[in-house]
Amino acid sequence: MAIRPLHDRILVKRLKEEEITKGGIIIPDTAKEKPIEAKVVAVGTGRILDSGEVRALAVKKGDLVLFGKYGGTEVKIDGDDHLILREDDILGIIE
Amino acid sequence: MAIRPLHDRILVKRLKEEEITKGGIIIPDTAKEKPIEAKVVAVGTGRILDSGEVRALAVKKGDLVLFGKYGGTEVKIDGDDHLILREDDILGIIE
Amino acid sequence: MAIRPLHDRILVKRLKEEEITKGGIIIPDTAKEKPIEAKVVAVGTGRILDSGEVRALAVKKGDLVLFGKYGGTEVKIDGDDHLILREDDILGIIE
Amino acid sequence: MAIRPLHDRILVKRLKEEEITKGGIIIPDTAKEKPIEAKVVAVGTGRILDSGEVRALAVKKGDLVLFGKYGGTEVKIDGDDHLILREDDILGIIE
Amino acid sequence: MAIRPLHDRILVKRLKEEEITKGGIIIPDTAKEKPIEAKVVAVGTGRILDSGEVRALAVKKGDLVLFGKYGGTEVKIDGDDHLILREDDILGIIE
Amino acid sequence: MAIRPLHDRILVKRLKEEEITKGGIIIPDTAKEKPIEAKVVAVGTGRILDSGEVRALAVKKGDLVLFGKYGGTEVKIDGDDHLILREDDILGIIE
Amino acid sequence: MAIRPLHDRILVKRLKEEEITKGGIIIPDTAKEKPIEAKVVAVGTGRILDSGEVRALAVKKGDLVLFGKYGGTEVKIDGDDHLILREDDILGIIE
Repeated sequence: MAIRPLHDRILVKRLKEEEITKGGIIIPDTAKEKPIEAKVVAVGTGRILDSGEVRALAVKKGDLVLFGKYGGTEVKIDGDDHLILREDDILGIIE
Repeated sequence: MAIRPLHDRILVKRLKEEEITKGGIIIPDTAKEKPIEAKVVAVGTGRILDSGEVRALAVKKGDLVLFGKYGGTEVKIDGDDHLILREDDILGIIE
Repeated sequence: MAIRPLHDRILVKRLKEEEITKGGIIIPDTAKEKPIEAKVVAVGTGRILDSGEVRALAVKKGDLVLFGKYGGTEVKIDGDDHLILREDDILGIIE
Repeated sequence: MAIRPLHDRILVKRLKEEEITKGGIIIPDTAKEKPIEAKVVAVGTGRILDSGEVRALAVKKGDLVLFGKYGGTEVKIDGDDHLILREDDILGIIE
Repeated sequence: MAIRPLHDRILVKRLKEEEITKGGIIIPDTAKEKPIEAKVVAVGTGRILDSGEVRALAVKKGDLVLFGKYGGTEVKIDGDDHLILREDDILGIIE
Repeated sequence: MAIRPLHDRILVKRLKEEEITKGGIIIPDTAKEKPIEAKVVAVGTGRILDSGEVRALAVKKGDLVLFGKYGGTEVKIDGDDHLILREDDILGIIE
Repeated sequence: MAIRPLHDRILVKRLKEEEITKGGIIIPDTAKEKPIEAKVVAVGTGRILDSGEVRALAVKKGDLVLFGKYGGTEVKIDGDDHLILREDDILGIIE
C-alpha cells in the first residue's frame, strides 16, 4: 500500500532515534523551531507555477531531508510515522 | 441526484470505519492535523490559473484520497457523509 | 425590478424548506460550515483575471447551487431571501 | 463643487428613505452585512490591472447600485451623505 | 527645503480650518473613517507595476485631494502639517 | 569595514540631533508614526520584480532620506547608528 | 557530512564571540530586531521566480552576512551552531 503525493507534496518517513546520523546534525533544545530528519518515500509530479509550468521537485525518493518542526501533516503507514509536506517545507538535503 | 463541483473543487465520500484500509494508514491520536481517507465521487473541470489556463485536476472519480482534517465543507447526500474540497486540500492518492 | 450582479458576482434565491430536494442533500447539524442550497437568479458578466481576460462564469440562471454558510451578502427582494455571492463561494451545482 | 474619484473608485450618494424602491429590495434586520442602495455620482477612469491595462468601470453615473455595509469612506457634500467606494465593493446594479 | 517623494508616494499639505471649502465637503462626526482635505505639494515619479512598467500618477502638484484618515505618515515642514501618502490612499480630487 | 546591502535593501546612517536640518522637517510629537532622517551609506543592486527584471534603486549614496519609524533593522557600525531598510520603506528624499 | 540547501535557502554558521569583527558592527542592546553575523557554508541553486526563471543567489560560500534575529531555522552540525535562512532574510554582506 502506498500514498502518491499530489503536485509539490512529498511523503517522508521519520528516522528513528538510532537511525539519526551520529555526531552530525543535532537539534539544540533551545531552538524554537526544530528541523527534523526524514527519508523521502515518494514525491509529487511537481510544483505548478503561476505561469502554468510544472516544475519537477528538487528532492527524490531516498533523499534524507531536513524540515521545520511545524510543517506537514502526520500520517502513520504500516506502523511507521510519516509526514506529507510541501517541497517548500524542506530546508535542505543531507549528504 | 448529484453534485457537480465547480472548477478545482472535488466531491468526496468519507469512508466508513470498516472500509478504511486495514493495517494501513492510521491517524495517530497525537497528530494535531489528522488526514482523513475518502473516495472521490466527482471532480470539477479544473483549476483556473492566473494565466487564464484551465488545468485539469490530478484526481479522478474513484480515487481514494487523503486530506487534512480541517479542509472542505461537509454535506450529507442520501444519508452518506460527503465533503467538498479544493484539489489543494488533497495530500495524496492512496494506491 | 431586478439586480444585475457585477463581474464574478451571482444573485441567488434561497430555497424554502419545502423546495429543498427530498431525501437528498442534508446539512448535518454537527457541520461547522453548512452548505446551503439556492437557485441562481442572475449572474455577472464574468471574472476579471490578472491577465485582463474576462472569464464567463460556470453557473447560469436557473442552476441550483450549493454554497458555504458564511459566503455572500443577504438581500431581500420582493419579500424573498436572496444572496449576492462571488462565483468562488459556489461549491457545486446540484443536478 | 465636485469630487473626481481616482482609478477604480466611485462616488455614490445614499438614497433617502423615501427614495428607496418601494416593495423592492429590503434589507432584513437579521442580516449581518446589510447591502445599501445609492446612486452613482461620479466614477474613476478605471481599474489598473497587474498587466498595466486600465479597465473602464462597469458602473456609470446615474446607476443605482447595491453595496456592502462596511465598504467605502463616508463624506458629506453640500449636506448630502455620500460614500467613496471601490468598484469591487459594488455588489450589483439595480435595474 | 523640499521633500521629493519616491515612486507612488505623494507629499500633501493639510488645509487649515479656514481654507476648507465652505458649504462643501463636510466630514460627518459619526463617520468612522473621515476623509481629509489637503493640497498636493509634490508627487513621485510613478507607481512601479508588476510588469516593470512605471505608471505616472493621476494627481499633480496643486491638486486638492481627499484621503482616508488613517493613511500616510505625518511630517511637519517649516511649521506646516504635511503627510506623505501613497497614491492608493487618495480617494479623489476636489474640483 | 563596510556592509553591502542585498537587492532592494539600503544602508542608512541616522543623523545626529545637531545635523538635522534646522527650521526644516520636524516630527510632531503627536504623530503616531514618526518619519526619521538619515543619510544613505550604501544601496543594493536593485529590486527584483516578478518579471525577473532587476530595477535599480531610486536612491543613491549620499542622499538624505525620510523613512517611517518602524521600518528596517538597527545596526551599529564603528559606533554610529545605522539602519538597513528596503527601498519601499523610504518615503522621500530631502533636497 | 553536509547539508545542501534547497532553492533560495542558505546554510550559515554563526560566528563565535571572538570571531566577530572588532570595533566593527555592534548590535545595540536597545535594538528590538538584532542583526546577527554568520558565514555562508552552502547556498541553494537559486530562487524560483513567478516567471519560472531560476535566479542564482547573490551570496556565495564564504561570504560573511548579516541577517535579522528572527529569520531562519536553527540546526547544530558537528557541534557548531548553524542556521538555514532564505536569501531574503539576508540584510547585507560584510566586506
